[in-house]
Amino acid sequence: MAHKTDIEIAREADKRPIQQIGERLGIPSEHLLPYGHDKAKVSQDFIDSVQDRPQGKLILVTAINPTPAGEGKTTTTVGLGDGLNAIGKNAAICIREASLGPNFGMKGGAAGGGYAQIVPMEDMNLHFTGDFHAITSAHNLLSAMIDNHIYWGNEQEIDVRRVVWRRVMDMNDRALRQVVTSLGGVANGFPAENGFDITVASEVMAILCLAKDLKDLERRLGDMIVAYRRDKSPVFARDIKADGAMTVLLKDAMQPNLVQTLENNPAFVHGGPFANIAHGCNSVIATTTALRLADYVVTEAGFGADLGAEKFMDIKCRKAGLSPACVVLVATVRAMKMNGGVAKDDLGTENVAAVKSGCANLGRHIENLKTFGVPVVVAINHFAGDTDAEIAQVQEFVTSQGSEAFVCKHWAQGSAGIEPLATRVAEIADSGRANFAPLYGDDMSLFDKIDTIARRIYRADEILADQKVRDQLREWEAQGYGNLPVCMAKTQYSFTTDPSRRGAPTGHSVPIREVRLSAGAGFVVVICGEIMTMPGLPRRPSAEAIRLNEAGQIEGLF
Amino acid sequence: MAHKTDIEIAREADKRPIQQIGERLGIPSEHLLPYGHDKAKVSQDFIDSVQDRPQGKLILVTAINPTPAGEGKTTTTVGLGDGLNAIGKNAAICIREASLGPNFGMKGGAAGGGYAQIVPMEDMNLHFTGDFHAITSAHNLLSAMIDNHIYWGNEQEIDVRRVVWRRVMDMNDRALRQVVTSLGGVANGFPAENGFDITVASEVMAILCLAKDLKDLERRLGDMIVAYRRDKSPVFARDIKADGAMTVLLKDAMQPNLVQTLENNPAFVHGGPFANIAHGCNSVIATTTALRLADYVVTEAGFGADLGAEKFMDIKCRKAGLSPACVVLVATVRAMKMNGGVAKDDLGTENVAAVKSGCANLGRHIENLKTFGVPVVVAINHFAGDTDAEIAQVQEFVTSQGSEAFVCKHWAQGSAGIEPLATRVAEIADSGRANFAPLYGDDMSLFDKIDTIARRIYRADEILADQKVRDQLREWEAQGYGNLPVCMAKTQYSFTTDPSRRGAPTGHSVPIREVRLSAGAGFVVVICGEIMTMPGLPRRPSAEAIRLNEAGQIEGLF
Repeated sequence: MAHKTDIEIAREADKRPIQQIGERLGIPSEHLLPYGHDKAKVSQDFIDSVQDRPQGKLILVTAINPTPAGEGKTTTTVGLGDGLNAIGKNAAICIREASLGPNFGMKGGAAGGGYAQIVPMEDMNLHFTGDFHAITSAHNLLSAMIDNHIYWGNEQEIDVRRVVWRRVMDMNDRALRQVVTSLGGVANGFPAENGFDITVASEVMAILCLAKDLKDLERRLGDMIVAYRRDKSPVFARDIKADGAMTVLLKDAMQPNLVQTLENNPAFVHGGPFANIAHGCNSVIATTTALRLADYVVTEAGFGADLGAEKFMDIKCRKAGLSPACVVLVATVRAMKMNGGVAKDDLGTENVAAVKSGCANLGRHIENLKTFGVPVVVAINHFAGDTDAEIAQVQEFVTSQGSEAFVCKHWAQGSAGIEPLATRVAEIADSGRANFAPLYGDDMSLFDKIDTIARRIYRADEILADQKVRDQLREWEAQGYGNLPVCMAKTQYSFTTDPSRRGAPTGHSVPIREVRLSAGAGFVVVICGEIMTMPGLPRRPSAEAIRLNEAGQIEGLF
Repeated sequence: MAHKTDIEIAREADKRPIQQIGERLGIPSEHLLPYGHDKAKVSQDFIDSVQDRPQGKLILVTAINPTPAGEGKTTTTVGLGDGLNAIGKNAAICIREASLGPNFGMKGGAAGGGYAQIVPMEDMNLHFTGDFHAITSAHNLLSAMIDNHIYWGNEQEIDVRRVVWRRVMDMNDRALRQVVTSLGGVANGFPAENGFDITVASEVMAILCLAKDLKDLERRLGDMIVAYRRDKSPVFARDIKADGAMTVLLKDAMQPNLVQTLENNPAFVHGGPFANIAHGCNSVIATTTALRLADYVVTEAGFGADLGAEKFMDIKCRKAGLSPACVVLVATVRAMKMNGGVAKDDLGTENVAAVKSGCANLGRHIENLKTFGVPVVVAINHFAGDTDAEIAQVQEFVTSQGSEAFVCKHWAQGSAGIEPLATRVAEIADSGRANFAPLYGDDMSLFDKIDTIARRIYRADEILADQKVRDQLREWEAQGYGNLPVCMAKTQYSFTTDPSRRGAPTGHSVPIREVRLSAGAGFVVVICGEIMTMPGLPRRPSAEAIRLNEAGQIEGLF
């Protein structure tokens, strides 16, 4: 029997009108701002009205270091949300929005997979409700206002060589990475080196995802550093008077988007910051709203647990006052094999020894997650080729680590395939066992914060940082930014900064290439290795095959 | 008594749910794709289903050459739509969407004014339903794919010096007018001169507004010329394989937007091409859909009648097979005075002689419009300071031209103030008097088409064009583009190419600076004078004062 593809399954979805999904959460239809019949934004007024309600339990889904075998973190997030609803709980899902640009390079990503998906999939991979376009506009308005400020006399005395605010576009366009602007004479301004990042890399995106409300959004936008003067004092977006207009451009985008799973359960899909130079989680406003409308909220964080979960805990939860009640760590037998040294082409052959050896990566993540004081359960995302002996090996290993592993078949079976995990997660969340604390305190020095993450999460022996980097960190501390958390930008494929080192390496060094201050988002970005903030298109971009077929359906996007 | 501002009036609007507005036109709610509660797109399926219905009467509202005194063309379009409904007719309005970027320079434009407005005004000046963002994405995807094509080996053998496809952004950003891209080394491509236009200047915008349906859209997108080879043969968007993906990005944007007037009458607001390098009318799909749902459709064209109405007739109507039944030419006493030589500061003083002398401009437009075979009625858009003698002068003049003029007080009174005009317009439209024909035939040479417009509409004595321009036109004719209409890009302030020459000048020359081929949109652009396709921000951009107030309302945008 041929399997249906994700898009085939998604197209067969029996979607309910979005008002019905909102009703499940107690959102009156006048407070749902529809975008078509299957998407809606939750009104700011309604969000304001539920601020005093008790919060539900927050469940984080994270994963081992990703391998080409795939782990299915989003699929498990969706499946677990459906599973909790299937066992009679009132649960909602919170995930990130997809970026438009990359879909024209490689095929677009489903939100989940198999029978654990969020729909409408096409819209979510295209313009959706326009949030990213609003972010692009707000970001580029600030860019235009900075250059315009300089053009008309530069009252703020900006050092034109030290404008740090670039432009953005939601497109994979390598030609825009590095450009010279304002050519062509006096009327076009002062020629300057400049460049574009992809929209998800914008600090505006990170801010939208961390802001509590529109007031907080405006304050944070004003706090962004856009340039420096000759005396190196920062020029803020507020000095350019852009914060108000940017907030106006973002007022609709700040309202979380509600969609549904294939099983008609509510899913908030809102915000999508990079998981390297930003924190990689859906918006705080979506998560906190969901927590006031549902008893359980299942969410996820970008990349593996070393990056995603750490930032979720140390940035998002710390800043938003959130306390996760349970962590679900997703692993697959195939990924364990790859961590155990098996090549991708050999994954079809049973290899219990490789699974056993690869479990070291899983074990390290379990241990790390426990340091945050939150109970950890492992979800083994089942693939058809997994053998009983291999699965038993993973389960045995997890038990030996003092945790529990559940085989989950949500991809093939929907909620019915993940009920045992859902039941256990609900029990743990209800038990109140979690005693969350971030990894480090606010008052630790910036360098010590980096050092703590490197030693305790990555298990590195040392940090390599130039004097320049150390001086920069101290300068920011002197300017009052010392209490910020750090946001690590490192390869997601390894605990180390070398993407080829799988498993659970020790004894390595973490070289810091550069540090950047996201003063509005409220974190210091620590760049370890090469980070690409504007992707390019491949030799044969998927866009070449994307088109509408005779039935008006989109072909080639998935 | 202090007058209420447009935004105050708009905020007091008693808006109906958009489904009720759709119902008036017979659009079932499942075929209205809502964007919030007061905006919706009409589904493509519904549009397909009404193609065999008879069409209503099309009424064009155009104006004299604009002066700083203001004519109120959109206000009259909206007022006339309301007026027709008030006298018991089933009428709809079709106007263009506003561009986002310019609102952050100068204050945003209302859609109409006073008691003749379309709402929601804030949304229409911000992201609205995302159409312009979709156009920006589609345009820039093509840009990225061209550079990517060159990067990966340039199979099409594009002459990298002859890439004519720029990028766009819906922002006033002079720094982007002229840039050098792909700096920074091999991985970023080949350095090249490049630049950005504002989104409304994109050929994609013009195409979206002229395409009959999604198939026609895709064909036209494929027909766009993006570059030339060393042998000067054109490279089309189709050669880059971008047409399919661009169509997918535009599929929602192609669906017309439905909103409402203050009097709850239906208004389609869709598309917004430049009125200089493009044809400056709302989309064909909105107009033809409205014509199948309403008995009367009131629409407008950009700038004065010499540019806007001429393009409406010779480009939009010719290409879409539309036949206007009546033209309403908007004039004001104040504008007549300015055309008669009065300075803006002196407009408050009665001056019948200046009105009389200024009527020459009005008379020229009446005469011109009649050459298209369509009956012309003049709407005198009433201002509080107009005196009876001044108004009588305009009416007398219009009568002497064999036409009729109606004093219209829709700005102050809504539909009640424009019923006489509405009644007469309906009579004329119903009379079948119109016998529309475009100004020139398809088979006239491109140069002769330009010459015809210059002599018969602008009343110029001659065209000034370099051999290079004449050769270029002949080359396009040889390539099969000779049957296209021409799209004149000229100042809107005068019949001549000199913006300071008001009234009805004769004996002037029309110098052609440049010609461009919009092969997808299907016209040859003839540039007479300086045309700015990327505006800049002023010294004190309105953005500096735009913000959300405590009540969550937008301040400073209007």
